[in-house]
Amino acid sequence: MDNETQSLEAIINNNLSGRDLDEFNRIYYGRKDNYEIKFKDSSIAAAKDGDFEIAAYAFPAKKEQTRPPRIVKVGIIQHSIAVPTDRPVNEQKKAIFEKVKKIIDVAGSEGVNIICFQELWNMPFAFCTREKQPWCEFAESAEEGPTTRFLKELAVKYAMVIVSSILERDENHAEILWNTAVVISDTGNVIGKHRKNHIPRVGDFNESNYYMEGNTGHPVFATRYGKIAVNICFGRHHVLNWMMFGQNGAEIVFNPSATIAAEAGSEYMWNIEARNAAITNCYFTAAINRVGYEEFPNEFTSADGKPAHKDLGLFYGSSYFTGPDGVRCPGLSRTRDGLLIGVLDLNANRQIKDRRCYYMTQRLDMYVDSLKKVLELDFKPQVVHESDKKEKC
Amino acid sequence: MDNETQSLEAIINNNLSGRDLDEFNRIYYGRKDNYEIKFKDSSIAAAKDGDFEIAAYAFPAKKEQTRPPRIVKVGIIQHSIAVPTDRPVNEQKKAIFEKVKKIIDVAGSEGVNIICFQELWNMPFAFCTREKQPWCEFAESAEEGPTTRFLKELAVKYAMVIVSSILERDENHAEILWNTAVVISDTGNVIGKHRKNHIPRVGDFNESNYYMEGNTGHPVFATRYGKIAVNICFGRHHVLNWMMFGQNGAEIVFNPSATIAAEAGSEYMWNIEARNAAITNCYFTAAINRVGYEEFPNEFTSADGKPAHKDLGLFYGSSYFTGPDGVRCPGLSRTRDGLLIGVLDLNANRQIKDRRCYYMTQRLDMYVDSLKKVLELDFKPQVVHESDKKEKC
Repeated sequence: MDNETQSLEAIINNNLSGRDLDEFNRIYYGRKDNYEIKFKDSSIAAAKDGDFEIAAYAFPAKKEQTRPPRIVKVGIIQHSIAVPTDRPVNEQKKAIFEKVKKIIDVAGSEGVNIICFQELWNMPFAFCTREKQPWCEFAESAEEGPTTRFLKELAVKYAMVIVSSILERDENHAEILWNTAVVISDTGNVIGKHRKNHIPRVGDFNESNYYMEGNTGHPVFATRYGKIAVNICFGRHHVLNWMMFGQNGAEIVFNPSATIAAEAGSEYMWNIEARNAAITNCYFTAAINRVGYEEFPNEFTSADGKPAHKDLGLFYGSSYFTGPDGVRCPGLSRTRDGLLIGVLDLNANRQIKDRRCYYMTQRLDMYVDSLKKVLELDFKPQVVHESDKKEKC
Repeated sequence: MDNETQSLEAIINNNLSGRDLDEFNRIYYGRKDNYEIKFKDSSIAAAKDGDFEIAAYAFPAKKEQTRPPRIVKVGIIQHSIAVPTDRPVNEQKKAIFEKVKKIIDVAGSEGVNIICFQELWNMPFAFCTREKQPWCEFAESAEEGPTTRFLKELAVKYAMVIVSSILERDENHAEILWNTAVVISDTGNVIGKHRKNHIPRVGDFNESNYYMEGNTGHPVFATRYGKIAVNICFGRHHVLNWMMFGQNGAEIVFNPSATIAAEAGSEYMWNIEARNAAITNCYFTAAINRVGYEEFPNEFTSADGKPAHKDLGLFYGSSYFTGPDGVRCPGLSRTRDGLLIGVLDLNANRQIKDRRCYYMTQRLDMYVDSLKKVLELDFKPQVVHESDKKEKC
């Protein structure tokens, strides 16, 4: 990873200063001042010791007359796998638990209220291999599996809501697999789960070989700290997925992801999609991507004419928050484990809705009619030809 | 304008070089090489003489076995008004015609096939005033008005399709006003028109005082050079507006806009929304914003507690193209008139659709059902409470 660029943020901060830096920050992030927040000395020491990055930024709202501020401390964690992928399944999982627990401990000590990890945080992203074994053995019960059990304890210890994206084994339905986000309450109960709605079929991302499109709709989880939802990975390309979480009242939507920098990869889109979702839906978004390289025991191909290979290329991290006004904070690095904390005043959402009127002006009735027509097998797109015009005259 | 930052691009190019510049370009634009295209000497001279910027970039596609490349040269023009807003309406309009004609002439001489201007390109953006006179007098017939007549000649002269956003006077319907994009064929015929679907009600943008939400659906215009559509200004915040143009088969969607840099303005969102639309809909987008300051004769207020004032602040230009893969080119400046040319291979759209499968995986049936429920007066959002869970157990 030594050759990898640390981050777009590092390029900017190493080269720009003064007015140029201010103007870049204003045009790119949406504000000159990042509202950076300091960590405790103990957290700084723990991060150094555990070799992970920590950063925190505030997203304040205006003071209101009739509501107190609704300030929530939200953490997102990005990390690489912990031991090689040829080690036994349970050993791989346990090593990730140990490593991530150190980051959760810092989040807990900083008073984080809600935390979310990357997609399938407790395993390597093995779907590139198209092999079923041993990767399917990473699957667990959402409610009772070892990962949920591990997290329940931490949720209670830190009074923290935890969003955990795992490979789910649905034991009540013929033991099939799902890509599932489990939401664990600060009381240690599983509030509910959401299954990934949109499944990729592209390049190394052969996920539709393992699980199907989710059947849980667009649930919003009413936690003690706010209403949250989870748009899992590939769903970030789908504007309707983001939209339905907004219609259901989500205040923060997490996008736990696993996405790579390789050619025709997603990196230049990463800073666009979750941010656009925050803007158009007037809610906070948190985009979280894993980091590092994952080498697998056996060769696989990308279906792009390239030679067989054993890893996907860099998972580029770069996790970040965006506010409902579209202002974002700097992202975590492209290469290191990290904890990013957003101190969010959820009052901002309604303030922005009132100001910009995007929901009020969205003409949903027109679109329901139009999209219903698109679904018809004999749908005729609304195309105007010059000859139509002439014939009409 | 001397104090204004020229562009984000200028900040980057003045401060970054070597690997840092390459990496910034890769992460931000999506490619290290911008595929810049040179202009003729005569065009460079005309641009210098007319004091406007010119720039051109290619967006190539892969070679296919069964289709030849479908390369289209598309131009977008951004400009300031030409004389003060207290001059007679026809004089203001004529002065803009004269100035913009010089830019169109360069586009024509460079072989541009399709050109689009900013929103309401032939007038100042006077809706901030809330005054009806004289601003309503800028309205014209879409089919027979002086602006359409002026452009028909140029369309034939240069065999160019022209997209012209104007204030329309609908003489067949009680002389009401619309915000309308007129599409003029390379033969000089009006192919059709599209009326702005989403009307802002925010800050200085009091447009709903002048015209209502458009009644023309989401037409795609089948021109000689490709299928085009127009998402007018505020519609860029509405993902369903972008989506319906894609469902109707648009290959290039123009976003003629008028938007400002002032506090809580749109500048940091400008580089997000049209680009996200290109990504999720797998088509080319062209975002076009006017430039400069527009001072009005009488004071008006922004409804934001600030003192009455006579101008809106800077219209920041920054027009740019994005390809269906989400790769974009550098934008025009924040302050100068300009012509940006994109040499687009429209074959890219289907290649990206085949690769990424965003349409195939979008589950439109589920969303039509869900959004229909949202429209019901007694709609109950899908919210999961911890107590629901307990009760069920």
